[in-house]
Order: sequence, then C-alpha cells, then structure tokens
Amino acid sequence: MTQSTFDAPTVIRVKRDGGVLTDEAIDWVIDGYTHGRVHEEQMSALLMAIFLRGMTSAEIARWTHAMIASGDRFDFGDLRRDGKPLRLVDKHSTGGVGDKITIPLVPVVMACGGAVPQAAGRGLGHTGGTLDKLESIAGFTAELTKTQIRQQLQDVGAAIFAAGDLAPADRKIYALRDVTGTTESLPLIASSVMSKKIAEGADALVLDTKVGKGAFLKTEEESYALARTMVALGEAHGVRTAALLTDMHAPLGRAVGNAVEVAESLDVLAGGGPEDVVELTLALAREMLAAVNVTGVDPADTLVDGSAMDCFRALVAAQGGDLSQPLPIGAQTETVIAPRGGTMGDIDAMAVGLAVWRLGAGRAAAGHQVQFGAGVRIHRRPGEPVAAGEALFTLYTDTPERFGAALAELDGGWSVGDLTPPPRPLIIDRITAADVRSR
Amino acid sequence: MTQSTFDAPTVIRVKRDGGVLTDEAIDWVIDGYTHGRVHEEQMSALLMAIFLRGMTSAEIARWTHAMIASGDRFDFGDLRRDGKPLRLVDKHSTGGVGDKITIPLVPVVMACGGAVPQAAGRGLGHTGGTLDKLESIAGFTAELTKTQIRQQLQDVGAAIFAAGDLAPADRKIYALRDVTGTTESLPLIASSVMSKKIAEGADALVLDTKVGKGAFLKTEEESYALARTMVALGEAHGVRTAALLTDMHAPLGRAVGNAVEVAESLDVLAGGGPEDVVELTLALAREMLAAVNVTGVDPADTLVDGSAMDCFRALVAAQGGDLSQPLPIGAQTETVIAPRGGTMGDIDAMAVGLAVWRLGAGRAAAGHQVQFGAGVRIHRRPGEPVAAGEALFTLYTDTPERFGAALAELDGGWSVGDLTPPPRPLIIDRITAADVRSR
Repeated sequence: MTQSTFDAPTVIRVKRDGGVLTDEAIDWVIDGYTHGRVHEEQMSALLMAIFLRGMTSAEIARWTHAMIASGDRFDFGDLRRDGKPLRLVDKHSTGGVGDKITIPLVPVVMACGGAVPQAAGRGLGHTGGTLDKLESIAGFTAELTKTQIRQQLQDVGAAIFAAGDLAPADRKIYALRDVTGTTESLPLIASSVMSKKIAEGADALVLDTKVGKGAFLKTEEESYALARTMVALGEAHGVRTAALLTDMHAPLGRAVGNAVEVAESLDVLAGGGPEDVVELTLALAREMLAAVNVTGVDPADTLVDGSAMDCFRALVAAQGGDLSQPLPIGAQTETVIAPRGGTMGDIDAMAVGLAVWRLGAGRAAAGHQVQFGAGVRIHRRPGEPVAAGEALFTLYTDTPERFGAALAELDGGWSVGDLTPPPRPLIIDRITAADVRSR
Repeated sequence: MTQSTFDAPTVIRVKRDGGVLTDEAIDWVIDGYTHGRVHEEQMSALLMAIFLRGMTSAEIARWTHAMIASGDRFDFGDLRRDGKPLRLVDKHSTGGVGDKITIPLVPVVMACGGAVPQAAGRGLGHTGGTLDKLESIAGFTAELTKTQIRQQLQDVGAAIFAAGDLAPADRKIYALRDVTGTTESLPLIASSVMSKKIAEGADALVLDTKVGKGAFLKTEEESYALARTMVALGEAHGVRTAALLTDMHAPLGRAVGNAVEVAESLDVLAGGGPEDVVELTLALAREMLAAVNVTGVDPADTLVDGSAMDCFRALVAAQGGDLSQPLPIGAQTETVIAPRGGTMGDIDAMAVGLAVWRLGAGRAAAGHQVQFGAGVRIHRRPGEPVAAGEALFTLYTDTPERFGAALAELDGGWSVGDLTPPPRPLIIDRITAADVRSR
C-alpha cells in the first residue's frame, strides 16, 4: 500500500471502530497533519477517537516515533568537557501545582557535574509552566537557537528552552488537545512528553509522574500505566529512562504561581525553602546523576555550599536574565484568615491551582499572556498548627477584580480541624526499565 | 446559568465522559458553531464523542430543535387551491443505491392531489443524491428562492430545492461529518434529516428507512431505532410522520447513477420500468396520501393514464428543465459478460454504489462536480436466468480511465450460480406515531 492510498476519514474510522492503526497509517496522518494535508477538524476527530478507544503499546510507540520524525532530533554527543563527553540528562514532570522543581533541580545537577538540555513548556490548564515562571525574571528568554543551546551546554552546562523545532507535530496537536477536550489521555500525554524529550538530545531522562487530585490522570493506576509507558518509550529510543511516582494531592511547597515560585526556588538554592521541595529536588537529582553514572557527590551539599546557586546565576545570566531586579510579585493582595484554631487539614492541589489560574497566572487559550505576579502563598501546610485569626493564604495579583473568582475556587479546598491529617509519603514508587521489561 | 458561562472544551468533556448535554448547552453549541464562535475542530471532537457515546432521546430532540432554530422554518399553511389548504406532504429516504424513487413519486403524489415541498440533497459517499440526478436534465435548477418555492407549490403543486437557508447548522455539520468519519451515527443522521424536513414546511412526512448492505446503518436493529427516533422527532414538532423499513441489499431497479436513473424514472412514469421501483413508488405514495387524508384515488392509475408524467413535465419545466434534450448518458461503455449460464445471485448494493462512485457519479469532497453521464445498468436482477456470454452489467462514463477502478469495486459483488437466491420482501415493516408512543 503506497502512502497516497490513505485518506483521513478512513484512518479515523479505523480508530473510531476500535481498530489498530498500522505504522504506515500513523506515519501518514502525522506527516499529513504537520504539513496541512490532514486538516485540523480531521485530527480533532481522530484525537477524540484515540481518547475514547485508546491505543496499543505499538501504536503509541509509532505515534511518538512519527512525532519525533516531524522535526529535528538534537544530538550533543560530540560535546566535551575536560576531554570527556557531557553527562546529558533531563527530567520531566507530568504537571503539578506548585511544581517549581526544575528551577532548583537543574542547577543542583549542574553543580554535581551533569549537563541538562531541557525543552520546557508553558502552563496548561490548572498547572503552571516552567517557562512562564522563569520568564518572570527580568530579561530571561527561552527562545534559544540550536546553536545557542549547544554553546550554552558547553559553557555553563544547561539550557532551558522552548521546544521550537522539536516535534512540531506535537506542538500542533498539543494546542488542538487544549481546545477540544482531549488533554487527559494516556496515549496522547505519553507520546507528547516523550517525543519532545527524546528529540531534545539527553542520554538519560527521569520522569516525575504525579499521582493525586492535582494530576492530569486521576487514578493511581493510570499514573502507574503512564509511567511505565513513558519509560518503555524512552528505552525503545535509546534514552535511559526511569520514573518516580510522586504525591500531588496537596501543592508542592508554600508558593504557587509564577514569580512567587521563583522566589521559593531561590530560598531552596540558598539552603532553606520548604522541606518537600528540597526532598523532591534531591531525590530527582540523585536519579538523574545515577542515570549518567555520576557518583561520589551528594547533591544536598550543593545547596549548603552555594554551588547550586552559582550554577543557577550562570544559567539565568546566559539566557539574558537579571536576578538583581526585584521579582514582579503582584502588588495587590488578599488574605484568607483562619476561622478557628486547630490543625490545618488537607489542601486540595486542584483548588489552589484553579485559584492561581483565576488570579491570572495561567492561560484561557494558547498564546495568551500570563501575569508574572499572580500567585498564592500557603502559610500553613497540612498538619501544621493554626491559631484563630492568623493568615492561612495570601493571594497576589495585579488585577484585583480577579480576587472574587480566585477565592471561590479556593473555598472548600482546605479546612482547619482538630485532627492531624495522616501524613502522605512524597515519593510513592520508582519505575525503571527493568520493571517495564519484566512485565 | 447564562449562555456566556459555557465554553466548548467543557461541553465536549461532558459528552466525552458519557454525560448528558443540557438543553442550554446544546442551544449554545449549535448557535456558537453556526456563527463561528465554536470552531470546526471543536465541533469535530464533539461529533466524534457523540458518535461513540450516543445521545438520549431528549438530547436528539433538542439538537434537532436547535438546528431548525439556526435558520428559517417555512410555513405554507396559507396557500390554497380551489379554496382549500394544500395537502403538503413529503418523503425522505435515508439513502440507498439506485434510489431514484423521488423522481417518479413526487409527480404521482401531485397527480393524486398532494403538494410536495421537498428540500433535497446531493450525493454522499456511495449513495446518489436526488439533486445530482435531476440536474442531469438540461437547464434544471434546484436553487430556488423561498418566493419561487411558494409560487411553484401554488402553480404546479411541488418544488424540489436545495436546502439553502433551512437548518444552516446542519449544512455545516453535514459537511464536517463527511470529512471526519462521523457519518454513520443514529443521533446525527436523525437530527440532520429531521431538522431539514421539519423546516421545509410539510404537514406530513413519510420516511423510507433503508435496511441492509447498501444502507448507512448496517444492522436491522439500528434501522428500526433510526425510524422510531425520526418518527418521534417529526411528531414532537407537529409533523405527522410515518416510516417504511425497506430492503437495500440489492440496488433498486436496473439503473444506478445520474442520467441513467432519470431515464429509468421516465420509464416508470410511462407505465413501465422495473417492478421494485414501481412497487416502492406506489407504497410510498399511498402512505403520503393517507397522511394528508387524500382518499378515493389509486396512485397506480396515474402511471397508466399519463397524469403523473404530465405532472413531472410541469415540475421540470417550472424549474427550467428541458426534457426534449437527450439525457447525457456517458458515451464510453464497458460491459461485464456472464462467465457461465445459470441464475443471477444476490447483487451487493454497496459494490454497485462504489462502482458508480468510481465512474464519477459521486463526490470525493463537498463542492466537487459530479459526472451526469456516469452510471451502471443492471441487465439481470437477482433470480433472473442468465445465458453464458450475455451482458450482465453495462458501465457508463465520460472518463474511460475510471473503468478499471469501477470494475474492481463491482468484482465480487455479484455471482451467477445454479441456485435461485431466496426472494426478499421489499417492504419489511411500517412504523407510525402509535408505535413510538406505545414504547
């Protein structure tokens, strides 16, 4: 069968009726969509059919392969430092609330001798985007050319950049999923993440797969399946891949938004910051360093001796950022006060994520500008003692008319009571290539 | 909840997850799509979700209502002939191969005293369209204004016209379904047919619901469900509605295409023509006349006494057509010869429909021009004796390079053997408002 014998309605019907798409059909539809021969409305119908009918492992692998093939695949294997190849490793999170981990993590890994080429994303729905957060630093840009990325990996050991020409099919599909209600699909999430991450040129990858109310996939079972699928995809493309399953019931840390998360990250890099952010940063750093055989260093030391902070300053400076400028945290504030004394109960990550989105930190549609100043600070985390009348949350924005909607989202997402909520382990499980092969 | 609180991804997610759309959500999405606020890719995703999740009766009713409300609804209740209101009645077929029944049927009903306002369609997929067939008559036009339709109903008693401003939401959705593989869905078929048919201004409607290989819905159970759904929709909007379930395993008659079907229809109007075409024409005519209380006439007489032919000539002339010009039947022919003697077995309507489509009688995409000359003549119908070496099918086209693909479609769709295939009743069942109410 030659390529020209395919047509979009026929390919759509196969998936619609629960069938399996052939490699040739997948290649044809991804290439056709990238170049405009398969139209937006046809890809939308196919995405909904995939959402409802699912995909086999082989289909997901080919779909990912076709998305990688739609653009560049970076190769930094020729770069050397002190005569040795760079230890190229990256991390990806499936998206959480208050998940600023990339910001302290990348410099910790740099300080330990790893090199990080990171294609990062912008915010989607209730979750923030690393690029939106970093761009709250005056002058910071993520629009780097391939030449700039190479040079920066060589000079400072990391680059955080917009995906640009990597997997252009995914960029189009990602935008389409956002407006057609087809975001929360395992095959579509796994192929989207892994096409960009395989194309970005790292030798190894660590996935932070979220579990809980604030995650895109709602059940633990789905999160496990997603982690296993992504690990298998990475390994099949020659990228050493492991995944941590981590808790996303409550937001990470005490700050959710754009500039407020950068501020909290600077606290972590200065040796302080919330316990859970430090714990997850170090756990992921250890995974990443082990994956590229960096041994004999303790990433925790880099937060104490200032070396991670130095690396962060070098990274930000290389991308045009100026940390001497104050972070643009919203000038207008509103405070939520404890109605009684007791103990802070669970805080619902989804409620906080939506509140921050209402304050202006996220987008209603692709291409919209975000407010760097919008955010929420959490003064009492689950299990901490609360005195009646003290501040529990501070909301920040530059557009105070947004407070009403944000407070409404937050309402019911937290409580103060007499009981201490049971502690949740932050790191739930670990999935490696061996787990995927043994299945 | 005000209209402005809806957004398309949220509406799509409700159906995607198997929920029921509220009346307000349906009104919002149809109105938004008609006016471009809900985008093509969003409606595509919603259509696929409807295809796979289905709709309740209440949802189908509201969806149909909203599509009617997107445009004009004709009302010819003020028209009089001899001081009495016109007996306004129409028929709709769910689409079959060789289904030229409208062409003899409308003049038969006119000759018996009924009046027919018919919004007709163009061909879709393997089935032909009444307008494509009639436009093979030199000068014939279906592009009538509302004023012209009124005048023609008054003057000659019928008008066959392109839907135009009737249910514009359906026109957009129909085109979208064709390119997104969402055609064969009961809720989408029922609402599409009934929105146009309710809007066209008839007091009564008879549905010819096809069952079998050549029908859009493949099982008898689905065809029954479609008939019941459409009858209920008509009754709910004040249109007296009944349905016949009729066989569509083999093509109707001995001609499939555009001009060749007009020629066969003229044979029927002249008192000849294939038995099955005559039988179905008269059965539908009786249903239509009964629905508007025309009694004491036998439609069969109008084929014998020439009155139906006179009505057809008047209708064609009113719409600019010139029957004195020869019909443009394709100049290039190819013949399929009997490989042996025996009895003609079943003929697969789908195979013949696709062969005719390959010859150029149908469209690959909306807006394409059809070939009036393309068609197939069937010389031996199922059960008829066959002599070795005699012609079984003649294929017609103006583009002989199409013969190869057409012959390939036809291959395997018929056989000559020693056994006589069991006869199938043409009219299988009848569904009325009483059947729908009693359920």
